[in-house]
Amino acid sequence: MFQTYDSYSNPAAHPPRLAALRRELAARDLDGFLVPRADAHQGEYVAARDARLAWLTGFTGSAGFCIVTPDRAGVFIDGRYRVQVKAEVDPAHFTPVPWPETRPSDWLHQALPEGGRIGYDPWLHTRREIREMEKGLVGTGIALIALETNPVDAIWTDQPEPPVGVVRLWPDAVAGETAAEKRARIADALRKAGQQAAVLTLPDSVSWLLNIRGADVPKNPVVQCFAIIEENGHVAVFTDPAKFGPEVRAALGNEVSVLPLVALTPALTNLAGPVRVDPASAPDRVFALIESMKTPIVEAPDPVILPKACKNPAEVAGMRAAHLQDGAAITELLCWLDSRAPLLGAEPLTEIDVAQKLEALRTARGILDISFDTISATGPHAAIPHYHVSQDSNLRIEPGHVLLVDSGGQYENGTTDITRTLPMGPVDPAVRRPYTRVLQGMIAVSQVQFPKGVAGCHIDALARAPLWSEGMDYDHGTGHGVGAGLSVHEGPVRISRISDIPLQPGMILSNEPGYYREGAFGIRIENLIVIENRQSPDGREMLGFETLTFAPIDRRLIEPGLLSPAEVAWLDAYHAEVWDKISPLVEGGVRDWLFLATRPLGGSV
Amino acid sequence: MFQTYDSYSNPAAHPPRLAALRRELAARDLDGFLVPRADAHQGEYVAARDARLAWLTGFTGSAGFCIVTPDRAGVFIDGRYRVQVKAEVDPAHFTPVPWPETRPSDWLHQALPEGGRIGYDPWLHTRREIREMEKGLVGTGIALIALETNPVDAIWTDQPEPPVGVVRLWPDAVAGETAAEKRARIADALRKAGQQAAVLTLPDSVSWLLNIRGADVPKNPVVQCFAIIEENGHVAVFTDPAKFGPEVRAALGNEVSVLPLVALTPALTNLAGPVRVDPASAPDRVFALIESMKTPIVEAPDPVILPKACKNPAEVAGMRAAHLQDGAAITELLCWLDSRAPLLGAEPLTEIDVAQKLEALRTARGILDISFDTISATGPHAAIPHYHVSQDSNLRIEPGHVLLVDSGGQYENGTTDITRTLPMGPVDPAVRRPYTRVLQGMIAVSQVQFPKGVAGCHIDALARAPLWSEGMDYDHGTGHGVGAGLSVHEGPVRISRISDIPLQPGMILSNEPGYYREGAFGIRIENLIVIENRQSPDGREMLGFETLTFAPIDRRLIEPGLLSPAEVAWLDAYHAEVWDKISPLVEGGVRDWLFLATRPLGGSV
Repeated sequence: MFQTYDSYSNPAAHPPRLAALRRELAARDLDGFLVPRADAHQGEYVAARDARLAWLTGFTGSAGFCIVTPDRAGVFIDGRYRVQVKAEVDPAHFTPVPWPETRPSDWLHQALPEGGRIGYDPWLHTRREIREMEKGLVGTGIALIALETNPVDAIWTDQPEPPVGVVRLWPDAVAGETAAEKRARIADALRKAGQQAAVLTLPDSVSWLLNIRGADVPKNPVVQCFAIIEENGHVAVFTDPAKFGPEVRAALGNEVSVLPLVALTPALTNLAGPVRVDPASAPDRVFALIESMKTPIVEAPDPVILPKACKNPAEVAGMRAAHLQDGAAITELLCWLDSRAPLLGAEPLTEIDVAQKLEALRTARGILDISFDTISATGPHAAIPHYHVSQDSNLRIEPGHVLLVDSGGQYENGTTDITRTLPMGPVDPAVRRPYTRVLQGMIAVSQVQFPKGVAGCHIDALARAPLWSEGMDYDHGTGHGVGAGLSVHEGPVRISRISDIPLQPGMILSNEPGYYREGAFGIRIENLIVIENRQSPDGREMLGFETLTFAPIDRRLIEPGLLSPAEVAWLDAYHAEVWDKISPLVEGGVRDWLFLATRPLGGSV
Repeated sequence: MFQTYDSYSNPAAHPPRLAALRRELAARDLDGFLVPRADAHQGEYVAARDARLAWLTGFTGSAGFCIVTPDRAGVFIDGRYRVQVKAEVDPAHFTPVPWPETRPSDWLHQALPEGGRIGYDPWLHTRREIREMEKGLVGTGIALIALETNPVDAIWTDQPEPPVGVVRLWPDAVAGETAAEKRARIADALRKAGQQAAVLTLPDSVSWLLNIRGADVPKNPVVQCFAIIEENGHVAVFTDPAKFGPEVRAALGNEVSVLPLVALTPALTNLAGPVRVDPASAPDRVFALIESMKTPIVEAPDPVILPKACKNPAEVAGMRAAHLQDGAAITELLCWLDSRAPLLGAEPLTEIDVAQKLEALRTARGILDISFDTISATGPHAAIPHYHVSQDSNLRIEPGHVLLVDSGGQYENGTTDITRTLPMGPVDPAVRRPYTRVLQGMIAVSQVQFPKGVAGCHIDALARAPLWSEGMDYDHGTGHGVGAGLSVHEGPVRISRISDIPLQPGMILSNEPGYYREGAFGIRIENLIVIENRQSPDGREMLGFETLTFAPIDRRLIEPGLLSPAEVAWLDAYHAEVWDKISPLVEGGVRDWLFLATRPLGGSV
């Protein structure tokens, strides 16, 4: 079972931990300490030993941090977690702080006298983060102190060990490029830029580079590690060597060495430079170690990020194949939900039931893991974009509810992420108008063509314009990058108002506009799309999207008359393709259901 | 007559001037000199005495610069002027240089030995420009030297005197805010920011602030001047005081002083500071003078720019009224063109004839000036977005040509800018598809609603998506800001891929997508639009556009079937409004023509 639904709550555990931390800080002559949610790799999922924020405060969200001072403990959380934080932390000891509205430096300025000393673990914060906080503290007399050891680890007596997930090979046939070729490509870029080496601190960068996958953290099949790639193509990986079996070692070859984590510090201090390090993701400590030797540093993006984002034909083929399996599982779920909807009064169905059913269907399709915890949200819960169902929150699906299911799988050949929104019986007709506007936005992105140079910030409005026409909007981005057998949220490109990196062929993105009416219902429709080249009569370099996700989009929630003929044509063509691709993969009643679900809209709307 | 059509060409004049300049530079021990097109106010139109670039090189474009060294003279011009520059400069003495593709610093590095000394007139370059060039010259050993006097002025024996255009008052009723109120508003912002004064170097900023208009440069009714506004609301204007008659002086009151230009230097060196100066527009010399006294400088945008961009209800009302007169003049032109089209074989009609006819029609409607030289471009000329007709280039309009007319007027109550594209008889049906796509883009921008925070870079794609769907695009922005009785191109907001300043109520923009097929035809359709508040059922702060321009959009060039029902509805509603607003202003045959031109598309497409 990949997803758990335990309600995390052990409220009595946290005040003693907080008190112990304060004693530890006092012993170290510190006036405060930063406890981030992040680990040294800034990933979305962290190993159990790195869940310091949850262990200390009880808050289990995927982003945030706590600042502990002698008399305050502020839990900084963004808009997604305003509700959750209240349920998870003890207000007598912890104070939720809205962030980024409240700058941590301003909060510290209020909380501490001049001359205050705030400790931080320089492995857990990026150089950029520390720089920004230091900028905010200019003139306050408060100093940030990089600590040699983490005070939380010092008091966490039963802290779990680091994970030792077994490393497997990601087949060259699915990767489309051997690890040796990738190393040569990155090394070539370093040579051309006059850089002797680059430090890689993002596990998905190393995993992509070496065609390996791991089992260190849930949902994200990366190998937790650091690496240094030199301009001669040699790579040193720093992690527990026990993760690597003989077959993987042999495949990596002599130009890749695997060293224990303790070897990282001497390696960083022995580089000749110039060394390329990414201030947006590399720990502050990595910079400090290289700087301590006066080795020249080039601040530049991780050299693997962009090559990894631009998927090659084999990677795209793997993603296409994974999406067919996933589309079949989703189709089975949708058919099952339709069969259960009329019975809701007699046979109760909960959000967890739906998530478990879907996990079972995906497991039958061969997933290695889910790609993130399924968002199974009914009625008012669907209005919380990042709703996380637990035994405590688990709602019964009521007749007339709108059910939102956002989920994905890690397959042997790729990663999926799909959202569908469904009527559980006859729903309030007021849902139809925003549902149709969301669908129109999703269609607009699906079918747009654009010239090279255009970025996510330029096309984001296409997904929103139909909602905007109603005075509506949604407070999240339209799409995120997706890894091929890697992180379901992958940088650097997004479809959002602030993403100005040009879109390039092979990039895979989600396309997921939504609408949320607090306390009432939520809507989101999501497909994954991949950027491909297109023709131009004028010789312009044009790009467009190929859709990867194939599963029916509910037609019963569409408001008749709002769709243009072109939009109807897109939806009918999409559904025809769903039928062609998915019907061979499902059987019996599911196939019959799929036939009806993918009929052209024609007169039926 | 506002527009002239003289072909500028006196090729023999320029080589002796270049030789004289080189002698002057040698006498000053300089290895080169920058001759910009700009004057000290960075405006689009310059006074005759500031036309140094044209005087030296023969190049008359509205942007560019020349770098003169002992053996080279590079004329740097952007893509718009690649063709024009060849016709205007003598290639034996001047070399066109593609810019920004070639960085001036790289060109200088090639052209000069290490230790080269390049002079520049620090009044004619912004601080930002000089900084960027200096950055490019790091490591080359080439130095930029700010000169006390301009070497071109030294050899230009018959250089015209500075203009002394009479200043008139811009009525408070049209301005919607008295000059005293405006001064108080800006002064308040300075006080709140802790700034003692701001230096204003943009004539439209000063003209807006003081509710005055001038006659120093053509097309743009600004008063060429500098000003300093202090945090107590006092303003000192620096220009020839002879421009100000007693009535204007009296209206300005005691808190506004008018001083001769020579008083500017002592005024700048006597400020206490902090002084706000805009590095994007203020001359390098202004910074240097303040810095010479070690007075603190705050680099920030001109404090008038944003208040000026957000038009108040009275300004919008004036703009609406000006657009009705202008729409009537355009309607008369369109009717006249339709009457002439069938006779083209027998009664020749040229681009200049059209521009002159339009100027006469606008003059009858009371314009004070045109707002820019009319682009009257037929056939292949229309594919040049910034085509400028002269006696040399003047084409006869041939039957079957597509005619593009982009023009505007300066009225007593506002400024207009409109483009229409017309078939002169039956045209190649291949024109219809791109014409319709351009129209769809223009409609998409016209009817979009969007939340506060959205910028021009976010909605630019809406204007392009219909063209993109054909693999087509246009290589200019979608829209520029427009002043109210001021510059027809006004900062800071645009609808373009790189404009990230949030759109705000009252801002007036052009909406002008286009399509250009080199050597064949060009299409552009342009209305002005003003940002207004809109309602939201979710309590979001929404904005939208009200259209200001009313004149028929040619329906004969529309490709049947490409428009969606919503687009047809927009066009029909627009034309109905054109009829309602313009028909009372025109008579007889024009009115009859307008009735037909504004019928609903209905079955006629």
